[in-house]
Amino acid sequence: MLKTPNIYCLVKGASEGRTRLNAFDNALLNAGVGDTNLMRMSSIVPPGAVEYNIEDVDLPAGGLIPLAYAHIDSATPGRYISSAVAIGIPEDETEPGVIMEYEDHGRLKNVEEIVEQMVIDAFDYRNRALKEIKSIGIEHQVENCGATFAGAVLWYE
Amino acid sequence: MLKTPNIYCLVKGASEGRTRLNAFDNALLNAGVGDTNLMRMSSIVPPGAVEYNIEDVDLPAGGLIPLAYAHIDSATPGRYISSAVAIGIPEDETEPGVIMEYEDHGRLKNVEEIVEQMVIDAFDYRNRALKEIKSIGIEHQVENCGATFAGAVLWYE
Amino acid sequence: MLKTPNIYCLVKGASEGRTRLNAFDNALLNAGVGDTNLMRMSSIVPPGAVEYNIEDVDLPAGGLIPLAYAHIDSATPGRYISSAVAIGIPEDETEPGVIMEYEDHGRLKNVEEIVEQMVIDAFDYRNRALKEIKSIGIEHQVENCGATFAGAVLWYE
Repeated sequence: MLKTPNIYCLVKGASEGRTRLNAFDNALLNAGVGDTNLMRMSSIVPPGAVEYNIEDVDLPAGGLIPLAYAHIDSATPGRYISSAVAIGIPEDETEPGVIMEYEDHGRLKNVEEIVEQMVIDAFDYRNRALKEIKSIGIEHQVENCGATFAGAVLWYE
Repeated sequence: MLKTPNIYCLVKGASEGRTRLNAFDNALLNAGVGDTNLMRMSSIVPPGAVEYNIEDVDLPAGGLIPLAYAHIDSATPGRYISSAVAIGIPEDETEPGVIMEYEDHGRLKNVEEIVEQMVIDAFDYRNRALKEIKSIGIEHQVENCGATFAGAVLWYE
Repeated sequence: MLKTPNIYCLVKGASEGRTRLNAFDNALLNAGVGDTNLMRMSSIVPPGAVEYNIEDVDLPAGGLIPLAYAHIDSATPGRYISSAVAIGIPEDETEPGVIMEYEDHGRLKNVEEIVEQMVIDAFDYRNRALKEIKSIGIEHQVENCGATFAGAVLWYE
């Protein structure tokens, strides 16, 4: 059985690259999580988990890191691409929070509005009181081939 | 090294939501796995694993849960969407079983027929004697934006 | 916290199948990893990890196996499909390596050239000295419904 994480970090990055995967790889480096093995998952904040800055967390190089993320790439010069995640923190600390991810061809303002509404809807559907929304996002105007990435890393203190 | 799971649960859910991800999130709640971190994987039943009802398994909130699943969403009102998984149990209990996933725009009956045939084919290709197929699935007629989900959760007793 | 892997295996497979998922399942069997639960991740070689042949590694049946992989399928008879992964090994053994994945409709030669360039770019962007590239790939000409798979399995000695 895998141990349930007890901390989370909000991270973001954007970059150009020669290929879509290189742009994504560079965006991960830009976000501070580039030399790890990211394991994508659907997207709950464990009860009582505490927020850390990614700079204060010692992720092992090549380690297996659970996270939820938004990601988009584009090879259309001039186009805006945006990724954002939002976390809903419950009033009751013994309940889990929710992470929502959204990405689109467009400006960050719209993407963040949508992802925050998604958190509100997720709490409504659960009949769970929402204390606070934290969100992080990034936009990028494509030069040749670009990617954006926003994530919530789950880890252990 | 990650411990190999020794139980599995068949789960299903369907829901509407304001966005595709919200509909999926609601379908997961409907299936009884909505407040966990689902780690999708390709899709084997460990040898000797035992079936449980999801109600009898205490998945930790925000825990990292391995599973295989089918999933489809649609924002076309009136359309049917269906997801199903099927598990093949081998005659020889020391051999692994196989999980197959299938989803489509259409009725569940067709989707289940296909996913069960996929299990038969997987056993044929392995030259492994098939004892039994268990399947679970769900269909949903889209109102505005809907999702279906069927999965095989792997866990530990 | 999940233990960081310390070995890796390069694997490849291709197959026909009645459905796309069956073709993929058969390709995994062909590659020697077919009866496991593959957990896909982004794609770093932990510092100092050692290469093994997959035949010399005892992956548990139904076990949870981290890996990075390329994968493509097609149901267009006569078409070539190719998958390749390349690993960059750093000069400095205390630094992590990089795994890149690429797949396309086309011949393996082009796919391998691209995936190897992706590794070079990933090291350039990191300002990390590259000692060696190892790559593995496979092409397949589709008969009815085919799939190719190339991966870097991460595991423990």
